[in-house]
Amino acid sequence: MKINLEDYLESKKKIVDAALEGCLSGLSSVPTTLVESVRYSVFAGGKRLRPILCLASAEAVGGDPGAALPAACALEMIHTYSLIHDDLPAMDDDDYRRGKPTNHKVFGEGLAILAGDALLTEAFHLLSEKERFKGVPADRVLRVIREIARAAGPFGMVGGQVVDIQSEGRTVGEETLYFIHSRKTGALITASVRSGAILGDATEAQTHALSQYGRDLGLAFQVADDILNVEGSREVLGKETGSDTRRRKATFPAVVGLETSRRKARELAAHAVVHLEDFDGKAEPLRAIARYMVERKS
Amino acid sequence: MKINLEDYLESKKKIVDAALEGCLSGLSSVPTTLVESVRYSVFAGGKRLRPILCLASAEAVGGDPGAALPAACALEMIHTYSLIHDDLPAMDDDDYRRGKPTNHKVFGEGLAILAGDALLTEAFHLLSEKERFKGVPADRVLRVIREIARAAGPFGMVGGQVVDIQSEGRTVGEETLYFIHSRKTGALITASVRSGAILGDATEAQTHALSQYGRDLGLAFQVADDILNVEGSREVLGKETGSDTRRRKATFPAVVGLETSRRKARELAAHAVVHLEDFDGKAEPLRAIARYMVERKS
Repeated sequence: MKINLEDYLESKKKIVDAALEGCLSGLSSVPTTLVESVRYSVFAGGKRLRPILCLASAEAVGGDPGAALPAACALEMIHTYSLIHDDLPAMDDDDYRRGKPTNHKVFGEGLAILAGDALLTEAFHLLSEKERFKGVPADRVLRVIREIARAAGPFGMVGGQVVDIQSEGRTVGEETLYFIHSRKTGALITASVRSGAILGDATEAQTHALSQYGRDLGLAFQVADDILNVEGSREVLGKETGSDTRRRKATFPAVVGLETSRRKARELAAHAVVHLEDFDGKAEPLRAIARYMVERKS
Repeated sequence: MKINLEDYLESKKKIVDAALEGCLSGLSSVPTTLVESVRYSVFAGGKRLRPILCLASAEAVGGDPGAALPAACALEMIHTYSLIHDDLPAMDDDDYRRGKPTNHKVFGEGLAILAGDALLTEAFHLLSEKERFKGVPADRVLRVIREIARAAGPFGMVGGQVVDIQSEGRTVGEETLYFIHSRKTGALITASVRSGAILGDATEAQTHALSQYGRDLGLAFQVADDILNVEGSREVLGKETGSDTRRRKATFPAVVGLETSRRKARELAAHAVVHLEDFDGKAEPLRAIARYMVERKS
């Protein structure tokens, strides 16, 4: 089975965007400026990679992607919160994201912090609404909450960001680089794939294989991102390029060089696909996503 | 049944502190500075009001407070995160809390934001660990996650804080004041009582009565807090007094006057107790807490 990845990503993005719109339109008794600040960043034109991985993973194990949709939305809300907080002056101090001024540039720092807090909390609120999960048993919904919370918290994303900001301007080795990237980006990407698998009623062996896929994919994604920060175009990326170098951020090109980084990204993407060899054609989107990951221009 | 409230609060505080210590000692693979920053604020000498209300509520309905302990810890973690973020320069810009420099004063703004993020996320991680709840069914654990997430997020605490910082320096009416307080403080206090009830296997009628109790108690607590900010002692409170007035914060004394505020607090506390009239002696701690709420000096 060959798929047209562009069409696939586009159709899934529409489903995710509509579901996010549904989640966020329920915020009617919430202060208007908070809703505006939250919506500004959620609908700033993200690729919806994490939610799409979650849905594609449910499909790959023969599950109903509809049952994974609430988790897909929660993952995007958590990803968006992390971008808002990362961009703050006290962290990466970024003025642009996806071609638009960052949240705190538009709404002020206080509201940006609160918009992030709101998105993170609302993600778990969404995950607790069992009736959204199309009959998935409560035990399994709890397992998904656990996966996502662990990946997003001090053991995962938040822990990675701490080491990232502490490493700025310092020379770090490959080990620290892996620590940062596997937690800051890798953990939530792996959790996206695993959540989809769990909600799609995967076997333990399938969930394990998809975790391995997620781990390699997450790292491939980050290496590719680091490369794009060096040689990508500002117009296509919608944010400053070269910023990692100026800030002496811990990146793959900085630590192992650009050529080795390119090879590394290709190897990781190829390796990710190998973990899916026991899956049938339903895993084709996941395979195509892995290949796309290292060829993308934004 | 008469109880010695001081002994009761002290013994429950010990149980909560030991449980929090257990939760936070599991953060061994987390960056050291993040753990230090989190621990600094969690063990800064809070009264543990929310967790104690959660445990007392489980007891009041004849349940096992041990089954409510994970929720009690999660509530305190969420409360602590909210204090760390509220104290930030972009929000209330407070230098002292409980007699100690605030988190960002010690660890810097970036780490303070991340410590808050870590605590919020870890609270939900803790709540997802079903095996901690002593046999409570998964459906009921999910219901507790929903209660707490709703109270902490845009519909509750975060929404209240948004209106609070937007109202600073402006004249607000009683309606806005209720909006702020019922969400910023009231929602999580009500959720504490409700979570304890749900985990203690309360009847719907009991949960409803305890919600009413929580609503009145939460408001009484906040009115008392506002009064203490005007006439309390810096030494006892461990933070600046008079700061609300200097910043023209929306408070009860500012809007309805000190005398009316005192009467209001007493009325609310008395009213809170009335909701418990169908409860037996096991609800005595909750009654005593309501009375104490408006007599406390810190």
